[in-house]
Amino acid sequence: MFITFEGPDGSGKSTQAVLLADYLRAQGRPVYLTHEPGGTEIGDQVRQVLHDLKNQGMHAATEVLLYAASRAQLVAQEIRPRLAAGEIVICDRYADSTLAYQGYGRGLDLKALHHLLDFATGGLTPDLTLYLDISAEAGLQRRQHAAEDGAEWNRMDAQSLEFHRRVREGYVALIAGDPVRWVTVEAANERDAIHKQICAAVLYRLAELEKPG
Amino acid sequence: MFITFEGPDGSGKSTQAVLLADYLRAQGRPVYLTHEPGGTEIGDQVRQVLHDLKNQGMHAATEVLLYAASRAQLVAQEIRPRLAAGEIVICDRYADSTLAYQGYGRGLDLKALHHLLDFATGGLTPDLTLYLDISAEAGLQRRQHAAEDGAEWNRMDAQSLEFHRRVREGYVALIAGDPVRWVTVEAANERDAIHKQICAAVLYRLAELEKPG
Repeated sequence: MFITFEGPDGSGKSTQAVLLADYLRAQGRPVYLTHEPGGTEIGDQVRQVLHDLKNQGMHAATEVLLYAASRAQLVAQEIRPRLAAGEIVICDRYADSTLAYQGYGRGLDLKALHHLLDFATGGLTPDLTLYLDISAEAGLQRRQHAAEDGAEWNRMDAQSLEFHRRVREGYVALIAGDPVRWVTVEAANERDAIHKQICAAVLYRLAELEKPG
Repeated sequence: MFITFEGPDGSGKSTQAVLLADYLRAQGRPVYLTHEPGGTEIGDQVRQVLHDLKNQGMHAATEVLLYAASRAQLVAQEIRPRLAAGEIVICDRYADSTLAYQGYGRGLDLKALHHLLDFATGGLTPDLTLYLDISAEAGLQRRQHAAEDGAEWNRMDAQSLEFHRRVREGYVALIAGDPVRWVTVEAANERDAIHKQICAAVLYRLAELEKPG
């Protein structure tokens, strides 16, 4: 089973991904938790290029191709072999982030992006995508507070509020296009309440996938 | 006018690109000479990832996407603005290298690569492509001798002879598909003889492009 987390920055995706991995492991299930961009040695080198604040002159197409490169390596090196071995793979961001950020956020052609994502992933689609929904304003505010406490503040965080609004609208459109795969969670809720909602969604989908015949 | 150099490693492309740039500059023409991968600050960071010998586990799709990312940045940041300003742009390797090395060399789907190259370049095609032809064996041998003398020996050089043979066959197929754009030069000839042949081809194409009407 391949589970991805999506949502604006500051929505608490990463925390929830860890909680879910712990929960499934406590049930005795083999879990591989990873994230994008990065997740491999080569992907981490690409992540550095993407996040470096001095690379402000990066063009939109370059950015898309670097995210896709990191993803291609992660899929081929880790995700596909682990799924084939029966592990549950949880990925913090995946192809939908490209559609939301570079497609809807930056206005790149969605059809061209779909071609590109197919090339990078070989067509691998998640079984379940958990979307942590939060307004662009609240998400940015959370990231700013975290950065004041020493968390990373990267080139993507530094985009305008208008950009982050378009990203959120993009997610809403993606969910409307494939409502069965996506489960939306209100990120403003308490951490534990969100965690319980996520676990319920995952167990439900697992039961569906494990149903005989 | 947009001129690219192609050919197996060790064919002398880079030397000839410099000689051509000097020749055109001596005629008073504005020339911008660049190379792939790299040619921009961001592209140079990507080039490091591509050439690092410790990245042997890089998958073919990752490699293609990194080359495309470096190219997208170079096209948007340097090549298009300079062509628009009337400069002659000379690029040591361009999109055809992806088709030859990753398409024919590694066996990736050529149609998918064409989509990807269109995305990265926005469809920008050279006016003239100079192909320095040399057998795979002779090309590798030249690179090995150069490396013994201190030149770089990178991850692409370290591929098998069979790979470099397929790359050369790929170039032959590309030339057959677009014979007007390509001019083939025998790389085993003397450096000055090659240079003269290249200058003649460039002046001929320039005259065609500058013809009124």
